[in-house]
Amino acid sequence: MAIILGIDPGSRITGYGVIKCQGRQQLYLGSGCIRTSGDNLAERLQQIFTGISEIIRQYQPEQFAIERVFMAKNADSALKLGQARGAAIVAATNAGLTVAEYSATQIKSAVVGTGRAQKSQVQHMITQMLKLPSAPQADAADALGVALCHYHTNQSLVAMGGKATLRTYGRYK
Amino acid sequence: MAIILGIDPGSRITGYGVIKCQGRQQLYLGSGCIRTSGDNLAERLQQIFTGISEIIRQYQPEQFAIERVFMAKNADSALKLGQARGAAIVAATNAGLTVAEYSATQIKSAVVGTGRAQKSQVQHMITQMLKLPSAPQADAADALGVALCHYHTNQSLVAMGGKATLRTYGRYK
Repeated sequence: MAIILGIDPGSRITGYGVIKCQGRQQLYLGSGCIRTSGDNLAERLQQIFTGISEIIRQYQPEQFAIERVFMAKNADSALKLGQARGAAIVAATNAGLTVAEYSATQIKSAVVGTGRAQKSQVQHMITQMLKLPSAPQADAADALGVALCHYHTNQSLVAMGGKATLRTYGRYK
Repeated sequence: MAIILGIDPGSRITGYGVIKCQGRQQLYLGSGCIRTSGDNLAERLQQIFTGISEIIRQYQPEQFAIERVFMAKNADSALKLGQARGAAIVAATNAGLTVAEYSATQIKSAVVGTGRAQKSQVQHMITQMLKLPSAPQADAADALGVALCHYHTNQSLVAMGGKATLRTYGRYK
């Protein structure tokens, strides 16, 4: 059994998603967005840090996963995204969590089965996998996707390593 | 009287400098570098966060200043710098400090008198202004430069605003 917190950081909107995994079961615990406000950079970063710290206190996750960034659009947006990522990651490490990173391709592969999946396909699959009544907001869906990717990646690793404390049931991917 | 912590963040080396200012006096309290180690991004960011939090506990600064980034070399280095900045800024806001940002040009103007000053001139002036026995290491010097810039900028603001609780003695710039 593991509670996983997935984060999709951004300077204006940071998505989060929390799932609980046990065997083949993956339960939705919660998701949403931290929307930062104001023009003050430091205050916005503190809102991300405080928001994630609060989510960690509330859900007590054992695992933390975040999307890896390979290519940012430009230096300016990369700097802004980097700052948001820094604040988010430090909120996790400061709470004693280790941080796992996954590329967008890994996340799409884990959720839809192909690294070239459309965003709408990812949202659709997440809605199905977690038995949600409707598709979550885009940033929250991305965060849930990272959490699911982390779970499936680790489940495979456990299965391959021989110490199968988590059982795998066929192919989820 | 004010204790100012200046920070020059970087993913591998984060410089810090602490000065104490009272009237025209500006005293050197300490400076150095936080060198992050290991290939794990999250651990390195946590080292920056913990390092700055520790410096804040040790020196109890009332003010925090950091260099503003206008143009990064490329998206990849901007992302890395952004992550380090995010961790550094959150260490300050988490300790209840407000964060002031200054451009490289503002820092050079405040320390040397011209925004086009060479790095060696900045280091020389900092050594003189703080009566140091030798020039500090480059990242520590940059951090002391930000702290001095913050002090001089605010001294001018106080003088201009009419509430001259800090006295200004001629031109430092």
